[in-house]
Amino acid sequence: MTPGPATQTLASWNDGPAKSAITAFVASVTTAGGPDFVPVPERIAVFDNDGTLWCEQPFYNQFQFALDRVKALAPQHSEWRSQEPFQHLLAGDTNALLAGGERSLAAIMAAAHSGITSEDFDGVVREWLRGAKHPKSGQPYTSMIYQPMLELLDYLRSNGFKTFIVSGGGVEFMRAFADSVYGIPPEQVIGSQGKLRYELRAGRPVLVKLPEPQFVDDGPGKPAGIQTFIGRRPIAAFGNSDGDLQMLQWTMAGPGPRFALLVHHTDAVREWAYDRASPVGRLDRALDEAAGSGWTVVDMQRDWKRVFPFEQR
Amino acid sequence: MTPGPATQTLASWNDGPAKSAITAFVASVTTAGGPDFVPVPERIAVFDNDGTLWCEQPFYNQFQFALDRVKALAPQHSEWRSQEPFQHLLAGDTNALLAGGERSLAAIMAAAHSGITSEDFDGVVREWLRGAKHPKSGQPYTSMIYQPMLELLDYLRSNGFKTFIVSGGGVEFMRAFADSVYGIPPEQVIGSQGKLRYELRAGRPVLVKLPEPQFVDDGPGKPAGIQTFIGRRPIAAFGNSDGDLQMLQWTMAGPGPRFALLVHHTDAVREWAYDRASPVGRLDRALDEAAGSGWTVVDMQRDWKRVFPFEQR
Repeated sequence: MTPGPATQTLASWNDGPAKSAITAFVASVTTAGGPDFVPVPERIAVFDNDGTLWCEQPFYNQFQFALDRVKALAPQHSEWRSQEPFQHLLAGDTNALLAGGERSLAAIMAAAHSGITSEDFDGVVREWLRGAKHPKSGQPYTSMIYQPMLELLDYLRSNGFKTFIVSGGGVEFMRAFADSVYGIPPEQVIGSQGKLRYELRAGRPVLVKLPEPQFVDDGPGKPAGIQTFIGRRPIAAFGNSDGDLQMLQWTMAGPGPRFALLVHHTDAVREWAYDRASPVGRLDRALDEAAGSGWTVVDMQRDWKRVFPFEQR
Repeated sequence: MTPGPATQTLASWNDGPAKSAITAFVASVTTAGGPDFVPVPERIAVFDNDGTLWCEQPFYNQFQFALDRVKALAPQHSEWRSQEPFQHLLAGDTNALLAGGERSLAAIMAAAHSGITSEDFDGVVREWLRGAKHPKSGQPYTSMIYQPMLELLDYLRSNGFKTFIVSGGGVEFMRAFADSVYGIPPEQVIGSQGKLRYELRAGRPVLVKLPEPQFVDDGPGKPAGIQTFIGRRPIAAFGNSDGDLQMLQWTMAGPGPRFALLVHHTDAVREWAYDRASPVGRLDRALDEAAGSGWTVVDMQRDWKRVFPFEQR
C-alpha cells in the first residue's frame, strides 16, 4: 500500500490547516534526534471506522447487513412472523421497526450475528459485501470509503506507524474487509464483540458466536478496548463522532507529541452534512472539545478534493 | 533479537526429534514455491506463558506477586485482619489459605489486581519484578525463563513469524515484561483480563481496573481469545498443560501445514518434573492427544542443553 512514484502524498487533500497539521505532526515524530521523535514501535495510530473510514449514512452499513441477514434467515424462523421486532422487518415496516428503539435494533443485530461459527460468519459477510449495494450511490459498500483517509493510512504506515481500527462495529464484521480495503490486518482490528463458545463438532473444533455481548467498543469502551487489545497508548487518534470522544481524550492525555483529528461531515453534495442533531454519528460534545483543545477538525467540503475513490475528478 | 553471527540457531536444543520437527516445519512453510509455503502475514505463532516460556513452580509467579501485593496493601485494609481469606495470608498460614480453594485464590487475585489504574498497575508490577526473587533459585522471576524457548521465539521471528503470547495469566501483568524479556510487544500479548472503567480524575482520563473478570483466557477460552484478539488461526502453537489443549486443537484443525508442541517438564534436577498429577500445570489429556495426533513433545531433560539463561554451561 506504499504510494507508488505517480501517487502524490495525500493527493486528495486540499492544502489547508488540516493537511498541514497532519504533515507537521508526522514530520515532528519521525525526525531522528528531534525533540518530538517517537520510536517506531510507539507510533500507534487508531481509527474509528463508521463515518471516519467509510460512510455511515443513511444508517450504519453493518445494520443494513443485519437486516439483509435476518430476511435471509427468516424461512428457518417461522416464529419471527409474529415476533417483535422481526415481524415489522419482514413486513417491510421500517417505521415500526425503528419505533422499537435500541432494544429492537439490538435484537436484530443479535439474530444476525449469532448462532453461526466464526468461520461461516466470515463467509456470510464476504458474500454480502460482494453483492450488496449502498442505497444512495448504488456502489458496493466497500467502495463507500474515503479516498483521503486511505491516503492518510498509507502515509502514516510509510512513516513507521502501525494503524489500528478501534470501532463500535462488530470485530468479525470489519475483519472481513479491513485487510483488503484498508490494508489493516485482522489482528489490528478492535471492535465490539459477542462471546464465543468452543465446541467440537464431529471431532472438529469450531467457535460459535453467541448472542451475549462480551465487549462494547464505543464511547468510554474505546480507551478500555485500546488498553485491553493494544496495551499501549496511541499517539494519534482519528474519529468523527461523540463515540470517539474518550478515545481522543485518552490519546491526547499521554506525554510527548500527540495528534487528534475529527472528520466533520459538511458536504451534503458529495456525501452528507450532519453533526450535532444526527441520530447516526452525532458530533456534538467532541466538536466542542476539539475547539477547546486544539484538535484538528477536517471540514470535508473544504479539505477533501475527492471523497470516494469512484468519483470522477 | 535476530541471532548474531556468533549465536547458533537453537543453540540450547539438543539434536533430536523435537529440534528436527521444528526446523523441518519452518523450512517447509518458508520455502518459496514449495507445496507448504505460507505467506508472511499468516505465519502466526502462539505461545502459552506459564510453564512454556517461564517457570510455573512451585506456584504461578503471578500468584506470588498477588500475595506480595496484598501484604503491601494490608495497612490500608484493616478489615482484612478478620476477613477470609486475607487473614490467613496475613497470618502466614498458607495451608489455611490454600484450603479455601479457587474462591480464596480468586479473592486474593482480585484484591491484588483491581482498584488501581492500568498505568499505576504497570508501575507496581515492574517494581515487583525488579525486587522479587524466585523462592527456589533466588533469581529474579524474569530470569526464570527458558533459554531454548527464547531461541525458538527468535528463530521463528527471523523466519517471518509474528509471535503472540496466549496465556491464562493477566494481560497487564505479562505486558510489564513481555517486550523486554521475550521481545513480544504489548499488542501481541493476550491474557485473562478484568473490566476497565474509564474515568476523568481532575480532568485527566484514567482506566481503573475492576475486580469483575471480563475474559478468562484459559482452556476453551484460548481459541476464543485467539479469534477475538488476532482474528486468524495460528499455524503454530506452543504449550505445556491441559489449559493449552484447545489452543493446540484449534491451531491444528486448519488447512495446510501446522505445528503443535508441548513442553513436558521431565527434569527434576535442573527444573521440575511434573505432568498428570500436578495441581499446577497439569499435563494429562493434552499428553494423550499429543501421542495420538503426532504433536511434538519436548522432553526437557533430553531435548534441552540448558534450561535457564543463568545456568553455567
